[in-house]
Amino acid sequence: MTNTQLTHVQIDNYGPWTVTPEPRREVDLQTLQSRLFADLSQLFGNRDGYVFFSRFDNMIAVSNGIDMDAHAMIQESVRNRYPVTMSLGVATGRSPATALGTATELLQEAGSAQDEHRREVLEGRTIEADFRTDEDVQIAHFDVNDATENLTDRLNEFDTFIHIEQGYAELMRYMREAHDSLSFFVGGDNVIAVCPALDRADYRDAVEHVHESVDVDLKVGVGRGETASEAGMAAKHALEECRSNNGDRVEIAF
Amino acid sequence: MTNTQLTHVQIDNYGPWTVTPEPRREVDLQTLQSRLFADLSQLFGNRDGYVFFSRFDNMIAVSNGIDMDAHAMIQESVRNRYPVTMSLGVATGRSPATALGTATELLQEAGSAQDEHRREVLEGRTIEADFRTDEDVQIAHFDVNDATENLTDRLNEFDTFIHIEQGYAELMRYMREAHDSLSFFVGGDNVIAVCPALDRADYRDAVEHVHESVDVDLKVGVGRGETASEAGMAAKHALEECRSNNGDRVEIAF
Amino acid sequence: MTNTQLTHVQIDNYGPWTVTPEPRREVDLQTLQSRLFADLSQLFGNRDGYVFFSRFDNMIAVSNGIDMDAHAMIQESVRNRYPVTMSLGVATGRSPATALGTATELLQEAGSAQDEHRREVLEGRTIEADFRTDEDVQIAHFDVNDATENLTDRLNEFDTFIHIEQGYAELMRYMREAHDSLSFFVGGDNVIAVCPALDRADYRDAVEHVHESVDVDLKVGVGRGETASEAGMAAKHALEECRSNNGDRVEIAF
Amino acid sequence: MTNTQLTHVQIDNYGPWTVTPEPRREVDLQTLQSRLFADLSQLFGNRDGYVFFSRFDNMIAVSNGIDMDAHAMIQESVRNRYPVTMSLGVATGRSPATALGTATELLQEAGSAQDEHRREVLEGRTIEADFRTDEDVQIAHFDVNDATENLTDRLNEFDTFIHIEQGYAELMRYMREAHDSLSFFVGGDNVIAVCPALDRADYRDAVEHVHESVDVDLKVGVGRGETASEAGMAAKHALEECRSNNGDRVEIAF
Repeated sequence: MTNTQLTHVQIDNYGPWTVTPEPRREVDLQTLQSRLFADLSQLFGNRDGYVFFSRFDNMIAVSNGIDMDAHAMIQESVRNRYPVTMSLGVATGRSPATALGTATELLQEAGSAQDEHRREVLEGRTIEADFRTDEDVQIAHFDVNDATENLTDRLNEFDTFIHIEQGYAELMRYMREAHDSLSFFVGGDNVIAVCPALDRADYRDAVEHVHESVDVDLKVGVGRGETASEAGMAAKHALEECRSNNGDRVEIAF
Repeated sequence: MTNTQLTHVQIDNYGPWTVTPEPRREVDLQTLQSRLFADLSQLFGNRDGYVFFSRFDNMIAVSNGIDMDAHAMIQESVRNRYPVTMSLGVATGRSPATALGTATELLQEAGSAQDEHRREVLEGRTIEADFRTDEDVQIAHFDVNDATENLTDRLNEFDTFIHIEQGYAELMRYMREAHDSLSFFVGGDNVIAVCPALDRADYRDAVEHVHESVDVDLKVGVGRGETASEAGMAAKHALEECRSNNGDRVEIAF
Repeated sequence: MTNTQLTHVQIDNYGPWTVTPEPRREVDLQTLQSRLFADLSQLFGNRDGYVFFSRFDNMIAVSNGIDMDAHAMIQESVRNRYPVTMSLGVATGRSPATALGTATELLQEAGSAQDEHRREVLEGRTIEADFRTDEDVQIAHFDVNDATENLTDRLNEFDTFIHIEQGYAELMRYMREAHDSLSFFVGGDNVIAVCPALDRADYRDAVEHVHESVDVDLKVGVGRGETASEAGMAAKHALEECRSNNGDRVEIAF
Repeated sequence: MTNTQLTHVQIDNYGPWTVTPEPRREVDLQTLQSRLFADLSQLFGNRDGYVFFSRFDNMIAVSNGIDMDAHAMIQESVRNRYPVTMSLGVATGRSPATALGTATELLQEAGSAQDEHRREVLEGRTIEADFRTDEDVQIAHFDVNDATENLTDRLNEFDTFIHIEQGYAELMRYMREAHDSLSFFVGGDNVIAVCPALDRADYRDAVEHVHESVDVDLKVGVGRGETASEAGMAAKHALEECRSNNGDRVEIAF
């Protein structure tokens, strides 16, 4: 059984800030957002967590092993170095989707994302050390079969991107609805999903669904561990197995 | 008439690098990718261009006003500061989609994206100074109506993200197929599209199409200019008009 | 008694790299160096360590509480994101100067800083958990009295800088020779020194020496702790005490 | 004759900010400062300028070719991405020291560096395009002879650093007093000086003075150009000449 700890990261009152007093230059906003994400990648990643940029003004972290004090420190470090602050809601659950639901509610109860008086919320609870196990986090790493040969080296870059994007949009919706999983595009032709305790049949189902719906062929490696970094690295190795044996589209590391 | 100059940015042999000799830590890859994008945002942005991260290992820049020497300098600056290099294909055209097609072909002709011997391609041509006009670039800035009230403050963050993502996937596909435009998600509920000389009816058509297909309600501000930054800033102001008058879903700044 | 753990960070073969095949652009080198330092600040800082940029191609970290595995991870993270690699020598000792001496020797024994075949040395030993105490690190935070009124707001910026720099050059030399301490300029009018178990008379001696030698008036707050961040924060609070009571030039927090 | 354009960059009210409401974590301050410097390196550097970190809260840029609009854009970009703002004073002159004096006065006249109501001053004047020449900027690039063999590979890192630092402190003071030049440590064993129209005898004098005063042996390459990047790159090549012919300690590229 998994026990995923998720953190909802929300920049406080960001939308209004981007247009006050005038719309700010897009290149500066893009720089700010991507550097903030890079910093959170390091801040959570140095504690064995994973962060996904999702919408950039709202990000989602798998934070197993990261306690509330560490969350407070991450929040402080951002306040010290950026013109914006961020709120953090933390929750745990058997299903990543349910855990995130709770994390988001903690922020919503504290006020609107665009409430100028709601700043640096830090709410929630983490898994106590004694209850942590090496099956807490399950991560699946998907990629598109032969993307370089069939897409990147053949189509114009935007048409490749459309193909990848349609596959992602379908996968992320289906994995959420059918399998309570949260799937994130992470660049190239790669998608990383945070999952409950799914089995081979579930992943096969997802791969087939995407193939049938939007004609994108995926393969997937799956790992698990006590933290996101452990589970994610196992998933990467499993995906390498898929690549090399070129047979089954699903490889599970445990 | 527009005359868009587009640059296809491709990290050389990136996929193999990420798994050689072993898969590299995901948090480092995420940090590398997002910082490289942030740097390109500044490098192109300081010359009035726009860059979109699209797939991160392949990025697309609107580079009107940026000559081949400046491209060479950007390429050199990345080589000096990153463990990877990048190739650049540059092309122009009435239609952004066609221009990008040419830019991509320049890279493909030089070798595969995963050819370890193809490094730092720099090919293409830019618009000569005498032929540049203040109608060369047309940019549309879309956002989702009442996203904070209806989505962010109500649903769990991933379900909000699904909603935004389905809207984006449909918009980017439709704008490409029906209107030769390249649309990019830029965070929050925002999408920026690089367009040929479209008119109000075209944008209305796109907004309606997305509403009917996936039930996501968009509005859009449109601007034009000699460079991406000019056109993009005009589009932002037009979008602010939409927000304040709350009436028409399409506002055109020229 | 203190027991300082010091890490000598050395970029491998950096000098030759900066001029091969041609001298690289200075702005890129400056960007690379200062970002690498910023990253190390976060990588060590997130584990309660301190890093000082000193010469940028060689940096010095106070790494109490950071084991060899964490050092290996920091080394890997830099390799994954920069065009250069770095070697790390780690040692401990009652005197910071002696500990650093050992750390440097570990690198020197492995080869020259400009040996192209010596890469990513990782040598040394850290303090075992059972032997760590809350007196292990002593840090002194110096600043210049009334620097804004007497210097910044009065002289041209370079003459202010000369004044600060002469004070620093004298303090760093004297603290090393008389008190086995390592002192680093950290911006503005601030110097942070890593010290053995010095007492009030020692600091008074240093402040007086600098006053007499180069006519720069310093004050200092001193803290100690199990880690650099604990000791350094205590030193900052002690320096605030100095500022507010405006009497004694030396404030010791323990 | 040179005509150096210098920009004094001053973070507004930085000292008080670092300790309000409590002293901020040193690692965050170090990260903030070094990243701000890295960004300014790129922002000025992309326009062929040079920036030196000097005290970090006050920086000095050689900004020939960068007009007031570009300065305003740099100021805005920092405001959009950092928790602090900065003021800019710009001035020109035959002597770098005099030019900087004027630039600093522009800021001082607008208020104290720690005046909380003085924000984002932007004052001064730049060289008009018609009056710019390719002799406007003269830059000298010094390094220490055989630093790796004699110091880095032999002494402990702090003692090497002391040696370099004593040489720098003496050189920067002497070049200012005897030759109206502004000299900045840029890492490793390198110092870059912004000079008026000095000749071979002047540089020889400086090298000899430092040798006699503090027993540090320097060599120097000198270049000139319309911008800092041109002059600086010529100086680097001249220094490479020194290295290879191993004879004269002064090499002048023009």
